[in-house]
Amino acid sequence: MVKRNKNLKKLKSGYLFPEITRRKNKILETEPEAKIISLGIGNTTEHLKPYITEALVDGAAGLGTPEGYSGYGDEQGMTQLRTRIAENIYNNKVEPEEVFVSDGAKCDIGRLQLLFGNNVTIAIQDPAYPVYVDGSVIIGATGEYKENTQGFDKIVYMPCTPENDFFPDLKKLQRTDLIYFCSPNNPTGAVATKKQLKKLVDFAKANKSIILYDAAYAKFIKDKDLPKTIFEIPGARECAIEVNSFSKIAGFTGVRLGWTVVPNELKYEDDSSVREDWNRIMTTIFNGASNIVQMGGLGSLEESGLKEMQETVDYYMENAKIIKEGLDELNIKSYWNGNSPYIWAEFPGKDSWDIFSDILEKCHVVTTPGAGFGPAGQGFIRFSSFGHKEEVIEAIERLKEKL
Amino acid sequence: MVKRNKNLKKLKSGYLFPEITRRKNKILETEPEAKIISLGIGNTTEHLKPYITEALVDGAAGLGTPEGYSGYGDEQGMTQLRTRIAENIYNNKVEPEEVFVSDGAKCDIGRLQLLFGNNVTIAIQDPAYPVYVDGSVIIGATGEYKENTQGFDKIVYMPCTPENDFFPDLKKLQRTDLIYFCSPNNPTGAVATKKQLKKLVDFAKANKSIILYDAAYAKFIKDKDLPKTIFEIPGARECAIEVNSFSKIAGFTGVRLGWTVVPNELKYEDDSSVREDWNRIMTTIFNGASNIVQMGGLGSLEESGLKEMQETVDYYMENAKIIKEGLDELNIKSYWNGNSPYIWAEFPGKDSWDIFSDILEKCHVVTTPGAGFGPAGQGFIRFSSFGHKEEVIEAIERLKEKL
Repeated sequence: MVKRNKNLKKLKSGYLFPEITRRKNKILETEPEAKIISLGIGNTTEHLKPYITEALVDGAAGLGTPEGYSGYGDEQGMTQLRTRIAENIYNNKVEPEEVFVSDGAKCDIGRLQLLFGNNVTIAIQDPAYPVYVDGSVIIGATGEYKENTQGFDKIVYMPCTPENDFFPDLKKLQRTDLIYFCSPNNPTGAVATKKQLKKLVDFAKANKSIILYDAAYAKFIKDKDLPKTIFEIPGARECAIEVNSFSKIAGFTGVRLGWTVVPNELKYEDDSSVREDWNRIMTTIFNGASNIVQMGGLGSLEESGLKEMQETVDYYMENAKIIKEGLDELNIKSYWNGNSPYIWAEFPGKDSWDIFSDILEKCHVVTTPGAGFGPAGQGFIRFSSFGHKEEVIEAIERLKEKL
Repeated sequence: MVKRNKNLKKLKSGYLFPEITRRKNKILETEPEAKIISLGIGNTTEHLKPYITEALVDGAAGLGTPEGYSGYGDEQGMTQLRTRIAENIYNNKVEPEEVFVSDGAKCDIGRLQLLFGNNVTIAIQDPAYPVYVDGSVIIGATGEYKENTQGFDKIVYMPCTPENDFFPDLKKLQRTDLIYFCSPNNPTGAVATKKQLKKLVDFAKANKSIILYDAAYAKFIKDKDLPKTIFEIPGARECAIEVNSFSKIAGFTGVRLGWTVVPNELKYEDDSSVREDWNRIMTTIFNGASNIVQMGGLGSLEESGLKEMQETVDYYMENAKIIKEGLDELNIKSYWNGNSPYIWAEFPGKDSWDIFSDILEKCHVVTTPGAGFGPAGQGFIRFSSFGHKEEVIEAIERLKEKL
């Protein structure tokens, strides 16, 4: 008989978010009338803006005409979109051929794990977006899960906590092939400064490591001095890949559009090109993002679309401010720097899942338990600012009243 | 430094279709005026029909309204679409929870390879859709490429040729964990009969193998006696996974929508559920097909949409008939059974890439060299019926004139 993939066997129970959904549904079974508000999963709630909607509608309608129809496109994405991303997001600091359009950052992370295979060592920020760990387990790059460390063997966890200003102590860090790094960070909301990122790039270059830089929240950065892409840092083109997404900024969580930049300078030990292998992965087991959706991406990067994306970002950031101020009033210590849609709240000495359940049961508010993002997330709760403003206000009111 | 993934190193040059594009572009460099007609890649050319277009347009427009907006959906697909697929395509012989909606069959095949990992043995029809082999190489389930056999070590190639009626001789076949099987076949166009599929299912059950059944062309089957899904065969629910697609039937090659059925009865050696592991893969490294596109899928499976899909199938089948008749007139032996969009032409003793180049250079018609699909494809050329009818007619005229 066919043996179960031993890597899948290693995984811990469910992926974080399905587990949260299960717990939420349990509440609804006993209290079907409960009006649950979610500040949990980073799921956009505001409908698409008119210009971007029109771009999608036009893209769909065009397919119904002989002139507008297109079948398979380039697996790497429409040239026009790759060019626009290079121009607008990267000020032409990357080439269009280095930009690979996709159906989203999560899927690209899975494909990057396939690209590098199971014979690499890995460092991950702790806490971190669960896909870095779970995908690495699935591809077989890790050992078994150890209860005592609450982590997987063969993964180097880089604690990012208030104590180290959410930036790993690189002097103590052992060398790995890959370093996952997310800024603005999910879940902590921390944004690395130019100085910090410079340290990271220098560390990667000195160690001949590759940084997998997740910039999915870069558009939430308001401070002009904070880097919005790793490619602002000298030397990054020789040591970094950047993953990015339209999900949160254009409201495309369900629409599905992202991209990955693999610079031409990035090489393996044998001097062969990482970009060429990535191209092979993308053309072999991927078939391009939807042509309709790519038209929406193009619209988003036109002047009117950019304005609409900024409005969307501003809306959620207003929510973040409301949450932060509410937690302050409740005397719950929390971290939020005004450049991220996530607020990281600290409950010293408590178990994350207990706090999560407490908030869920008492206030009918869904959050995300910090421990779900890694051992260093224990004792923390992530509040997401993705929600309708009036619900965010109500959620905070409930917290004030019932917690 | 980071070592290149040894599996990617094993791959042969480019993926088949990019290689064809390169050769086509070479012609255009020297003859920029050449009007090249493609009967090569199976790429749909006819614009979407009105009802299906409207479903997509409505899906997109809805996202611009508070009532119609949706963010992340279930990674497995909209319940309504899973239900409709179970009802309409499978006559309720599969459960909605066994249907996983995706961004296409090619991507699902890549994820299935990740599901089973590198510790499985594999049998593949020869010739076959290149993704079965290339994806298996990337995940590390194969050995090195051997020039003498023109194949990869550790893959069992099942020759499917006119001599064995395009169906493998199962009596001689060694047991493998996975058996890739595609019907209607890409590239040969052969369709397995119920009797043949029964033999295959019995073989898989006796050997405790899992069949990965690619039914992407099932809607092209006209003969009522031929099975349109492997789940018509008793016992298939214990040994088969089916991959399917809207690409060719709804014109969704660029729109991206497919699905995979993993029956609840399918188990690993340890009696654990394959479906549950597939669910874990889909929720961890995938984030659902685009919500807009899924609305188009729903429209396609309503009465008007089904009618439109049938018209699309009929259009391409008319092209197939034109190609078949043209090849007959040219006394080129070819195989086409009236149930597939591909015609498989035989040029005994000749090299596929030579015939390909000959047709491309003399007639400016792109085909697909059979050898690109595996060693048993040598001496064959695949003609695809996906094209504008007037161009298909012209291509055949050129063949008659210049070949």
